[in-house]
Amino acid sequence: MELVRLLYRHPEVEVASVTGRSAASQHIGEALPHLADLDMMIEPELGDVDFAFSSLPQVASAEAVVEVVKRGVKVVDISADFRLKKAAEYKEWYGATHPAPELLEESVYGLTELYRDQVKSARIIANPGCYPTSVLLALAPVLKEGMITEDIIVDSKSGVSGAGRGLGLMYHFAEANENVMAYSLNGHRHLPEMVQELKAIQPEFEPKVTFLPHLIPMTRGILSACYVPLADNNRLPAGEAGKKALLELYKEFYKGEPFVRVVSVSPGTKQTLGNNYCVIYPTIDLRTNRLIVISCLDNLVKGAAGQAIQNMNLMLGFPETMGLEDLPVYP
Amino acid sequence: MELVRLLYRHPEVEVASVTGRSAASQHIGEALPHLADLDMMIEPELGDVDFAFSSLPQVASAEAVVEVVKRGVKVVDISADFRLKKAAEYKEWYGATHPAPELLEESVYGLTELYRDQVKSARIIANPGCYPTSVLLALAPVLKEGMITEDIIVDSKSGVSGAGRGLGLMYHFAEANENVMAYSLNGHRHLPEMVQELKAIQPEFEPKVTFLPHLIPMTRGILSACYVPLADNNRLPAGEAGKKALLELYKEFYKGEPFVRVVSVSPGTKQTLGNNYCVIYPTIDLRTNRLIVISCLDNLVKGAAGQAIQNMNLMLGFPETMGLEDLPVYP
Amino acid sequence: MELVRLLYRHPEVEVASVTGRSAASQHIGEALPHLADLDMMIEPELGDVDFAFSSLPQVASAEAVVEVVKRGVKVVDISADFRLKKAAEYKEWYGATHPAPELLEESVYGLTELYRDQVKSARIIANPGCYPTSVLLALAPVLKEGMITEDIIVDSKSGVSGAGRGLGLMYHFAEANENVMAYSLNGHRHLPEMVQELKAIQPEFEPKVTFLPHLIPMTRGILSACYVPLADNNRLPAGEAGKKALLELYKEFYKGEPFVRVVSVSPGTKQTLGNNYCVIYPTIDLRTNRLIVISCLDNLVKGAAGQAIQNMNLMLGFPETMGLEDLPVYP
Amino acid sequence: MELVRLLYRHPEVEVASVTGRSAASQHIGEALPHLADLDMMIEPELGDVDFAFSSLPQVASAEAVVEVVKRGVKVVDISADFRLKKAAEYKEWYGATHPAPELLEESVYGLTELYRDQVKSARIIANPGCYPTSVLLALAPVLKEGMITEDIIVDSKSGVSGAGRGLGLMYHFAEANENVMAYSLNGHRHLPEMVQELKAIQPEFEPKVTFLPHLIPMTRGILSACYVPLADNNRLPAGEAGKKALLELYKEFYKGEPFVRVVSVSPGTKQTLGNNYCVIYPTIDLRTNRLIVISCLDNLVKGAAGQAIQNMNLMLGFPETMGLEDLPVYP
Repeated sequence: MELVRLLYRHPEVEVASVTGRSAASQHIGEALPHLADLDMMIEPELGDVDFAFSSLPQVASAEAVVEVVKRGVKVVDISADFRLKKAAEYKEWYGATHPAPELLEESVYGLTELYRDQVKSARIIANPGCYPTSVLLALAPVLKEGMITEDIIVDSKSGVSGAGRGLGLMYHFAEANENVMAYSLNGHRHLPEMVQELKAIQPEFEPKVTFLPHLIPMTRGILSACYVPLADNNRLPAGEAGKKALLELYKEFYKGEPFVRVVSVSPGTKQTLGNNYCVIYPTIDLRTNRLIVISCLDNLVKGAAGQAIQNMNLMLGFPETMGLEDLPVYP
Repeated sequence: MELVRLLYRHPEVEVASVTGRSAASQHIGEALPHLADLDMMIEPELGDVDFAFSSLPQVASAEAVVEVVKRGVKVVDISADFRLKKAAEYKEWYGATHPAPELLEESVYGLTELYRDQVKSARIIANPGCYPTSVLLALAPVLKEGMITEDIIVDSKSGVSGAGRGLGLMYHFAEANENVMAYSLNGHRHLPEMVQELKAIQPEFEPKVTFLPHLIPMTRGILSACYVPLADNNRLPAGEAGKKALLELYKEFYKGEPFVRVVSVSPGTKQTLGNNYCVIYPTIDLRTNRLIVISCLDNLVKGAAGQAIQNMNLMLGFPETMGLEDLPVYP
Repeated sequence: MELVRLLYRHPEVEVASVTGRSAASQHIGEALPHLADLDMMIEPELGDVDFAFSSLPQVASAEAVVEVVKRGVKVVDISADFRLKKAAEYKEWYGATHPAPELLEESVYGLTELYRDQVKSARIIANPGCYPTSVLLALAPVLKEGMITEDIIVDSKSGVSGAGRGLGLMYHFAEANENVMAYSLNGHRHLPEMVQELKAIQPEFEPKVTFLPHLIPMTRGILSACYVPLADNNRLPAGEAGKKALLELYKEFYKGEPFVRVVSVSPGTKQTLGNNYCVIYPTIDLRTNRLIVISCLDNLVKGAAGQAIQNMNLMLGFPETMGLEDLPVYP
Repeated sequence: MELVRLLYRHPEVEVASVTGRSAASQHIGEALPHLADLDMMIEPELGDVDFAFSSLPQVASAEAVVEVVKRGVKVVDISADFRLKKAAEYKEWYGATHPAPELLEESVYGLTELYRDQVKSARIIANPGCYPTSVLLALAPVLKEGMITEDIIVDSKSGVSGAGRGLGLMYHFAEANENVMAYSLNGHRHLPEMVQELKAIQPEFEPKVTFLPHLIPMTRGILSACYVPLADNNRLPAGEAGKKALLELYKEFYKGEPFVRVVSVSPGTKQTLGNNYCVIYPTIDLRTNRLIVISCLDNLVKGAAGQAIQNMNLMLGFPETMGLEDLPVYP
């Protein structure tokens, strides 16, 4: 539904068909009152479209993507189905045989800032997970420069909307409010995605990642804190000068990027609410010589629908920022 | 005010004198309506008492404690003034010369579970900080056993009440709600306290601690996630058996402790709201062989007023749990 | 579960048997971690007890109450089954034939402050609904004095816990957070209960009540605002003196009541969190000569489990406040 | 700051000058990080502009407006300074002599839906208060038709952002969270504004309004519930048919309005978050023959900055919806 909200404002896009399963045959304003202005029905099957997005559950999404691609329609898959490049790993983490392993190679991991050129010519985009987006953008600059060791700890905090609209006691207001808890301690599905993509950025790197997501009492937003010892040969000056140099390195790396903001003060997720920013604050714990990088994004925008549109813009030759210009809704 | 709330229910305590500065000369129910049943005035100076607690700001607290101790009255200092044992370190972190360095040695760090005997005979208790309480209880069992390395990462999430009633834009509802942010990136004052006390538990240990607190949109509660590589000689069996053995070690360590609950499922802070528990969940990230220990507590109870009463009970010869028997308010 | 939390601290009560349906055969700490200290199993059927509470759903509750009463066990029914005294009205509002209409007459409406004597000798207590408790206590003083007209508007705001632990999109954190909405616009089941009991207080009164409950983003607490034109013969002095006289009338009416606090400043629900108070603020809109009475309570305590224990105390000859002495958890 | 957020996306507007007092001489991104993309300085005095908005505090705003109008620049005053048309009433409610009473007559009350034509040709717009906007749009249809009596009760619930960024214990997260309270019981400043404008809609009407605002734990949003007995000659059919007819009357009244949505299901404020809608749900309490109208809006958008831009669009000849097309951010 976030995709529809954003596309509604895109000057070059007309939302031609919205599918749904439980809500099929309802007017979109009945199921989702805030979208009533679209004035269209939710359909059981995708109608005639020039471009498609899939937010179906895993496996079902891959099956739908195959059908759409056969029709010659490009697609951004917001599900996880095309993210892991090895079918065996997919089976291990998602408990199912991949329905279209032959397309895994071709599909492009749509972390736009890192893979802009591949995205432009892709037929299938595997839109990154919300947590990996926050972590990969946070670590890419130092990883590319070989400035960090392989001992990576990622502690993420997420709003409840990341879990979708499905019901569960854990997401009941009375349970989630005034509460914080870690989950997926045996391994979150975004972990293999992170590891695969960290390696893709720096192939000789064998990252040892501990990733622990937490549910906190807010609706939208992810804040990830990444902790990594600096490599011995990190080439940063000592002390406060090192922090400054690090900041400059990040600013240089993301220079000109419309949606990555490198900042010099600890940011809050609220600075990204409803918009497509990833805000990154890199610093050093001088007492222990550990890198700390904090990144914030709206899990439903840069972590999902916004990045999907960013990719679509590139695939269709539109300006990359088109339809994504809104500033954050604050406070 | 949390102390008064709890003491009001303590069968052996009568609240004889409550001091305040801005609220002096008001009825307690005027300043704090939920305490109206106490029916007493807030005084500018402490009256005649048999036992005292201080929650004054730093420096002022030490000065008040000295006066009270001179009168022959035992005291629990909830401020930070007697926590750091070295006057030089106090000056470095609190920016002031300690007003009573001669008492630093004598005062006892009141982490009750670890220093029960010393607490019993103390005149001055330095009541631990909320974050250090959550971290020290989380790591003590493996630290005592020498099972961990010195590379400790602590990522804590705290409700807003930890910052007190002082006003600041950061604590304005419209700013703190739907937001999460890290703070004190150059070093939180609870860091030297943690390091000092980790060493006290295991003297040959030189902990390298990165501690990052976060403000999340809830009123009460702290959840700390501690990440530490296991030592090579950790003596734990491999795989899932190691997790089980670890859990047993924690259960054994805290056996009989009324306020430490070792659990086998990831806990939420809500399981401690308004009560004196510290809930601890130890586990292992088997992919990286790192220990993860999660601990939860109510920052105003086990992290402050509750632990202060627990210490008072020991100092006055009452049962340790007296007045602290309430179960958590849930949901 | 709130009942168990409170009873655990009651010096004269031992929780002997806890039943549950979906959670039957689980340890209570497995289903409800915050109650783990009780160390007992959830049973499918009630064990051997001297006194019982029922929180079963409607109809099922009445059936269980009949069984228990047959055994000679007194019971407080927290469900709605014995509140409406006319079986026909029960059928109209609850859509089912009452399973034990013969007991409706005998059961006592357990609004303790108004029916203390009847409660003492009752076998079955119909524990009042959370909204009616807030409204009846707010209006009883002026109603008894015949000072108001029959045109009553009640606008109530409730936390989400009032809806129980059942799942529903409306209670999903992402929906309920940052949202407020009115519900039950065609008539909430607490309306006939209010009307019946307003009449019981003042038999010649034919109240025309509009009652509109709202769901707001908090877990616990109800605040009701009652708007009623003053009767012509209200005997209050004009202007500010009238407000004062009104306040005195309320203070006099509830003098000595341990759980009703009449206050002179607009109260917040937080002043009742976790405790058994009903806080009432009566005033007059001098521009329109309308009475405004605001009342606050914790829907799970004075609005349910706390009032149930208050009633039990009277039925068993214990001091009325026993086990209910906790002050509110604030902030 | 909400005005700047919205204007940034307006295709015909360039933000040329932003003034501030405490933040003067700061980069806008330093004071308000989410607006950093504007890349401009906050100035102490307004620069050269073609159109102006004022959000200054009362009195100061009128003084600034006079200066700006003298320059020949049209202005929307978001403060309350030009809302009350009688200088004496202004003095009574705002405690100050109006600095420009000669302009009160000329300025137009900018409730766009009702005063579209006057707005188009105005030099000064008194932008309506957030509460009055919600109430006047809710009652205008039945008021114009003479279908209601004069006994109006308005119970409003507002998020905390309505109070601005000023600090106060009442707005501290730990106080406002998990709390609801009524305020301004002696009369809120929006009351005389409501009364004046209700009379303006229906001159022979002498409304007796009780207005009670409540603070609830959310950031944005106002929901007002208006309760009014239907007039005897209301011309609505009896029973459910009356509800239907009422709904049709509202739909007809607001037909073609881009920002007023009349709905047939009880709405939540979340359906307006960040956008310029006012969502209205009219119904009848058939048991008492009272009209209930519920209206929702975002206090910072339709209740302030959004409506200000809507008015500017008309004053400058732009399409009324320009820059305000965003759908609500949901969830």
